[in-house]
Amino acid sequence: MKSNADQRKERGKQTRQRIIDAALAIMIEDGPKCLTAGLITKRAEVSKAILFHHFNDLEDVSIAVFEEIFERFSVSMEGSRHKSVSDFVMQMGLGVINAPFSHRKISAAFLYFYERSAHNEVFRKLQVRTMELLLEHIRKNLESILNRPLSKDEVEVVPLLITMCLEGLGKFCIIFKDRSHLEAAWRKFSNGINELFERKN
Amino acid sequence: MKSNADQRKERGKQTRQRIIDAALAIMIEDGPKCLTAGLITKRAEVSKAILFHHFNDLEDVSIAVFEEIFERFSVSMEGSRHKSVSDFVMQMGLGVINAPFSHRKISAAFLYFYERSAHNEVFRKLQVRTMELLLEHIRKNLESILNRPLSKDEVEVVPLLITMCLEGLGKFCIIFKDRSHLEAAWRKFSNGINELFERKN
Repeated sequence: MKSNADQRKERGKQTRQRIIDAALAIMIEDGPKCLTAGLITKRAEVSKAILFHHFNDLEDVSIAVFEEIFERFSVSMEGSRHKSVSDFVMQMGLGVINAPFSHRKISAAFLYFYERSAHNEVFRKLQVRTMELLLEHIRKNLESILNRPLSKDEVEVVPLLITMCLEGLGKFCIIFKDRSHLEAAWRKFSNGINELFERKN
Repeated sequence: MKSNADQRKERGKQTRQRIIDAALAIMIEDGPKCLTAGLITKRAEVSKAILFHHFNDLEDVSIAVFEEIFERFSVSMEGSRHKSVSDFVMQMGLGVINAPFSHRKISAAFLYFYERSAHNEVFRKLQVRTMELLLEHIRKNLESILNRPLSKDEVEVVPLLITMCLEGLGKFCIIFKDRSHLEAAWRKFSNGINELFERKN
């Protein structure tokens, strides 16, 4: 049986999570601009006292939301086999291009965290961690497809290049409603990355 | 001699510009989060009544700031000759990579406008206009270097690809303090774009 202290801790954790979920939902639906204490407490059904018991300030809530997205993102990157480098790169791009138009609000929320990185070191470090995770994911996949470790030069350049272009693609998917040109450009890019390796072999 | 009405109009224009300059400075120094009526009026040395005489609301001020950056950006894109496609692409990247670290706050302000695009159609259209201007600038430069018009396929894909990667580069320059790998990756990219054209000729 759980002790009273354990039960209190468990309830505290659930309340904290409810606040994070509420903040994430507001961020996606209305934008980070609308992340006010009033809206969060209303949506999470907690008092302001409870909100500021769990978090020092609203920036603190934003950081928790970022960590939450980061967790989900890490899980979503597991698995899946690809038959060629261009297929792998193409699939990553299509994942962004074919996301429902409503998803652009999630990408937009990510941009908010980028923007905060220029002003807040905690956010910057979290962004760097996210990027490192993505770079590592790309490296592993390339090595598994090529069936050899990447050279030092390749490790430093290729995953960065793919991530960079993927970031730009994500931004364009926010503003352009017609994405057919984006897909054509991404295909060209995927083939270009493929050729980087083919020339070597 | 100017009539009284003309003088009033002129003064009104100057006040409006002072508000925009103040808002731009706040946005860059402290981030768009801090764009409050209180801070703008203090910095521009105007009353709130004057502020809201010139602008409907704070979103309206943000839009004017965006248009201001857009104007400066259009002017900065004039001129300069490049000897090859890779040189042109490389120079564009170096412009971003070698910008002083403090400039990342300006890039970050741009991300704010992207974020707003997902929630506000006025911002989205302004972003599309900025991108179209940049795509057109790249197309013209490529045509001048290659000394021939781009094919339909090239027009649709190449400028988009360069802009996309440039956008990602800008984001990375916000979060990474060491930019040497970014430069190496960008060089690879510039050469890749060059080869797209060389194979054709």
